[in-house]
Amino acid sequence: MSAPTTTPADVEQIVRAQATASKAASRVLAGLTTDRKNRVLHDAADALLAQTGSILAANAEDVARAELAGTEESLIDRLRLTADRVEGIAAGLRQVAALPDPIGDVIQGKTLPNGMALRQVRVPLGVVGMVYEARPNVTVDAFGIALKSGNSALLRGSSSAASSNAELVRILRDTLTAAGLPADAVQLLPSEDRSSVTHLIRARGLVDVVIPRGGAGLIKAVVENATVPTIETGTGNCHIYIHAAADLDMAEDLVINSKTRRPSVCNTAETVLVDKAIAETALPRLTQVLQSAGVIIHGDEPGMVPATEEDWSDEYLSLDIAVKIVGGLDEAVDHIDRYGTSHTEAIITDDLAAATEFTNRVDAAAVMVNASTAFTDGEQFGFGAEIGISTQKLHARGPMGLPELTSTKWIAWGNGQTRPV
Amino acid sequence: MSAPTTTPADVEQIVRAQATASKAASRVLAGLTTDRKNRVLHDAADALLAQTGSILAANAEDVARAELAGTEESLIDRLRLTADRVEGIAAGLRQVAALPDPIGDVIQGKTLPNGMALRQVRVPLGVVGMVYEARPNVTVDAFGIALKSGNSALLRGSSSAASSNAELVRILRDTLTAAGLPADAVQLLPSEDRSSVTHLIRARGLVDVVIPRGGAGLIKAVVENATVPTIETGTGNCHIYIHAAADLDMAEDLVINSKTRRPSVCNTAETVLVDKAIAETALPRLTQVLQSAGVIIHGDEPGMVPATEEDWSDEYLSLDIAVKIVGGLDEAVDHIDRYGTSHTEAIITDDLAAATEFTNRVDAAAVMVNASTAFTDGEQFGFGAEIGISTQKLHARGPMGLPELTSTKWIAWGNGQTRPV
Repeated sequence: MSAPTTTPADVEQIVRAQATASKAASRVLAGLTTDRKNRVLHDAADALLAQTGSILAANAEDVARAELAGTEESLIDRLRLTADRVEGIAAGLRQVAALPDPIGDVIQGKTLPNGMALRQVRVPLGVVGMVYEARPNVTVDAFGIALKSGNSALLRGSSSAASSNAELVRILRDTLTAAGLPADAVQLLPSEDRSSVTHLIRARGLVDVVIPRGGAGLIKAVVENATVPTIETGTGNCHIYIHAAADLDMAEDLVINSKTRRPSVCNTAETVLVDKAIAETALPRLTQVLQSAGVIIHGDEPGMVPATEEDWSDEYLSLDIAVKIVGGLDEAVDHIDRYGTSHTEAIITDDLAAATEFTNRVDAAAVMVNASTAFTDGEQFGFGAEIGISTQKLHARGPMGLPELTSTKWIAWGNGQTRPV
Repeated sequence: MSAPTTTPADVEQIVRAQATASKAASRVLAGLTTDRKNRVLHDAADALLAQTGSILAANAEDVARAELAGTEESLIDRLRLTADRVEGIAAGLRQVAALPDPIGDVIQGKTLPNGMALRQVRVPLGVVGMVYEARPNVTVDAFGIALKSGNSALLRGSSSAASSNAELVRILRDTLTAAGLPADAVQLLPSEDRSSVTHLIRARGLVDVVIPRGGAGLIKAVVENATVPTIETGTGNCHIYIHAAADLDMAEDLVINSKTRRPSVCNTAETVLVDKAIAETALPRLTQVLQSAGVIIHGDEPGMVPATEEDWSDEYLSLDIAVKIVGGLDEAVDHIDRYGTSHTEAIITDDLAAATEFTNRVDAAAVMVNASTAFTDGEQFGFGAEIGISTQKLHARGPMGLPELTSTKWIAWGNGQTRPV
């Protein structure tokens, strides 16, 4: 880490000044046509490609610092940019440009009995704060999604990616300036210490929403201390319930895909609940296929790594899985209610009544019947872009695309109507 | 006030136990058919009518206590129930029964390229906490709206209405029990001191949303200290901008209606911004008509009560209004940005471009053109029932009806789909 160059009081002042400038910029963005926003997104993609050299140079500084600090290779890989990855980031902006613009959509409307014409119109949220970890691509993705939905982006990236993020944001700001738009529509907050996060999440009245993307600890800290509205994302303690009427070949495929496709992401399966009625057949098959895939099994049965409370409550995000035998659908739902994080829950069954009951009773952002938990994803759902996966019930639930970064406004046109007493 | 019968530690335990029971009850409510919910609403209406005597007796205790405490008559009037008012409360429940049930609505759906059938379905939020002031009718209204949208209601009413609320909730709980449903779907939290509010807004994981209804102080305290998601309601520092191209007869009517119809409610107008271009004609007319209606004018012009910063920033909720001359639309929008609470803002003009620009630029739940601010109201908008008016941008904005008390769930039906790496 670099030595802090600012005092805590400075950080608060800096963050509030940035948020104020972000709010002012958001008022300009709210009035832009779709054509204009799309042009800026393509301009930014062009600028990133043209300046790949300077981006890679800045990134090399971050990577060198991480290597010096002995950071593990998987984290360095997330941090590292290449010419290919920069191309991918630019292509992402063009993809956002191609998406429909939600702003200005009329959601509903009617003429009141007194003749007033009423419509509910989609408008930007205003200032969107993002707190995220090492991947520098998130910096550009968040800018693109925020801009297309008419919002300013106030970005608090990881200090480990400070040089990369600074260079990327410089290029984005130059693009905005060249397009005659306020550069403050995208800003990077100081990342030397946690205090900038604290000031961001308490800038009520300046920041309209903060979306934390990262580990459970970050999300909990943000949600518990924020006075700004937040959207909780990404903690996924996902379960697969293998019902008594499950096709066991399918069960093997789905458990393996849900667990091993990308163990470090939030939609990976962390616990398998096996119905007692089929456990005698299912458990040995499952054990064998999981072990062949290099997955370590935690649980209460012989031959498993003995499970503690954390095995049921926490995400592994690794090639580990917890396995539990349950007495039936009621016990499966109870277990999920108790330990689940309301992200993605799946049932494997050929029984229609069981599938229906599970989807009705389980309280989660996504409930899958005979499908991999890995499908909970904005791209898979066809959103074209994703800002995160909400696990809360208010405002947005599940993968969030452009419409989830908007609010609404009622507009009424009258000709002098007064309301009777 | 009655003497506290519980210690602070007790209150925390009580609130958490009530919230836990509320959560359990909410799982039952989530699975009820519309028919069953409607039957309970009619049962409750019948029970309230049949037990009007005991309701009025309990209410008489509250009223007597308030009179003894020297409470002002307007507050006592809000607290007081009569046979007519009980009839109105019961009729409100039947009206909610007649509304369409939002639960189970399919908001969007599609078949993914791999054959998975995906749909986004409306589901209840779970446990809805309400913090509100004297009117006992809110107790029953909140129960009705929560039940119809499949939610448990955790109610924290005013201690001044403690006896009335206790009797109303007893009747509602008896109705639920008689219908074979969990009585804990509606519960009254202790109201002896503020600590039950604190515990309610920090019962994260048990309570899904808290909606404060009351003065700006209550709402601020709830929003700033909550870890549970909240919906900010009801603070309305509403403006009317009389544009240079306004019809001044219409302006007089709209200002008078917006200010004097019911000065104590949130959609009342608190400031009039008069365009400099017409001030010479408009101001004397406005002054005369406001004074005739008994309204005290605050402002910087001769003959007005000199205005302080609070005159621009706070709600009067009385027969007072602030009047300011502005240089044009830009200055009007800037003033509203600075002092408005994003509730309802109005422009009076015959100029299409000015009307369009005002509706585009002003950031509020409702923007009116040539209509009274008093129209921002769930009943006026045709929602049939209203739980409050949200002035925040996340989740719900403006009057909230049944759909605003719901969340969504993605349900995917597959036949063994796995996601490619």
